[in-house]
Amino acid sequence: MSLTIVGSMAFDAIETPFAKTDKTIGGSCTYCAYAASQFTREINQVSIVGYDFPKNELDDLNNLGVNTDGVEIVPDKKSFFWSGKYHLDMNTRDTLITDLNVLADFNPVLPESYQRTEYLLLGNLAPAVQKAVIQQLKTRPKLIVLDTMNFWMEVALNDLLEVLGMIDVLVVNDSEARQLTGEYSIVKAAKKILTMGPKQLIIKKGEHGALLFHGEEIFFAPALPLEEVFDPTGAGDAFAGGFMGYLAKTNDLSYENMKTAIIMGSVTASFCVEKLGTERLKTITTHDVAVRAKQFLALTDFVLA
Amino acid sequence: MSLTIVGSMAFDAIETPFAKTDKTIGGSCTYCAYAASQFTREINQVSIVGYDFPKNELDDLNNLGVNTDGVEIVPDKKSFFWSGKYHLDMNTRDTLITDLNVLADFNPVLPESYQRTEYLLLGNLAPAVQKAVIQQLKTRPKLIVLDTMNFWMEVALNDLLEVLGMIDVLVVNDSEARQLTGEYSIVKAAKKILTMGPKQLIIKKGEHGALLFHGEEIFFAPALPLEEVFDPTGAGDAFAGGFMGYLAKTNDLSYENMKTAIIMGSVTASFCVEKLGTERLKTITTHDVAVRAKQFLALTDFVLA
Repeated sequence: MSLTIVGSMAFDAIETPFAKTDKTIGGSCTYCAYAASQFTREINQVSIVGYDFPKNELDDLNNLGVNTDGVEIVPDKKSFFWSGKYHLDMNTRDTLITDLNVLADFNPVLPESYQRTEYLLLGNLAPAVQKAVIQQLKTRPKLIVLDTMNFWMEVALNDLLEVLGMIDVLVVNDSEARQLTGEYSIVKAAKKILTMGPKQLIIKKGEHGALLFHGEEIFFAPALPLEEVFDPTGAGDAFAGGFMGYLAKTNDLSYENMKTAIIMGSVTASFCVEKLGTERLKTITTHDVAVRAKQFLALTDFVLA
Repeated sequence: MSLTIVGSMAFDAIETPFAKTDKTIGGSCTYCAYAASQFTREINQVSIVGYDFPKNELDDLNNLGVNTDGVEIVPDKKSFFWSGKYHLDMNTRDTLITDLNVLADFNPVLPESYQRTEYLLLGNLAPAVQKAVIQQLKTRPKLIVLDTMNFWMEVALNDLLEVLGMIDVLVVNDSEARQLTGEYSIVKAAKKILTMGPKQLIIKKGEHGALLFHGEEIFFAPALPLEEVFDPTGAGDAFAGGFMGYLAKTNDLSYENMKTAIIMGSVTASFCVEKLGTERLKTITTHDVAVRAKQFLALTDFVLA
């Protein structure tokens, strides 16, 4: 099934306790697409870049079956640039620089061929922009998944609440779920969010895994304990991309299959952090994914007498 | 199989964002025994209390099959008293008061009937005291599990390293594993600890679950997402007690059964935090445990195509 991904493409400068780069390719859309391409090759990318964005990076995506017709190239502006430094715990980071550049004027226009997409992943953008994308669709997708962040809860809460009524699955981290609801308990926060529009909620907890709330059901996907986390940048996007890619491939929206999809998102996220930027995601194979998915199965497998 | 538990019995004063008590029964040994008694009734308790410790609390334990012959009652001293206040996250707390009282002179003497115990759980005490307990045994238990804390790594590291060479399973939390090894990565820390003596290592991560390291294998037990955590006091001890109680009951030290035992520890810990002190642990039934164990199974259950 066709999957459309909307989000940023960027240059990142990253410093972790174990690695450093002044310039690598990043952006939510980029990570999502590489992760999703492990499962499906019918991907439509919607983003914006400047004159400085390397053509070969778009070629790399095209070669994986990613249609980049929806990636606007602005000839007289620079690409979005983000710079961050991770603390030793790798769970917290300081943003050093955010140069929006082209992203400041991002008004995504869906090419005709994208407007009947069956799966839609709306990356973290202004809620009004996310809404504008939904309004360009000719048919309602089978599944709309939305990522957001605390910033939009502070500056555009009403827009966010409106767009929450138009989607199926919300993806946030634990602190964002708390902020959105004013509830400290994750379970209470989840129950509240499920009254705001989304039918399912995914709460990401970084190195502590992710939770899927689906009606009264709760599924927990652990993160794989890794000997070395090289660079956590993009792990959340790789998670969302893997999740969506697997659903678009299998085209099965049952709770059972969503659980497996969450695991596939955890699998792609676990690869993502092993190298700097998108480096590792670019090289994983179907076999790598299958082997790691089995590791996830073994990680929580137990028997009751 | 017989299970001997060595540790503190105490009065606690606890304040959480949701509850407060000036005086309740606590102590690692108490929580461990209540949790273990869900699975086995052949429990030997080794502890020390003062003249002020309520007789009916010992009766309650006796009624559950806990032998308290090894609980020394000091006629002219007060019981150990601990007071703590939890932060909103429930994962961190400030210790307000630690009155060691009788615990300052705790030199546990194992009654004759305890000296051939098949399972031994050494609660968090000075490593020299833990060693002295092992030395009183007439036969080597099938399994010795040891709990410790960062304090002993600071003031008695050599003693701790010595006792690590005498045990089978070490139980610590993530920050203690890091402190003991100087490794930030939990996986690297675990590998190092498994060269220090223990054959298995359990790393507790509070609300984020627990990991079992067994040779090259890693098992992850999630914590149950709860709507309300009322009081986290004793959760770690309820975990260790449930783990050990299940092993003593089943008498099977295979990796497969240890995984189930970890889940049973997570089950008893999940009940523990639902009410203040030992209140909830005192009232759970075999049926409650079975129902909750199935919830744990459902929580991480997924299928790979």
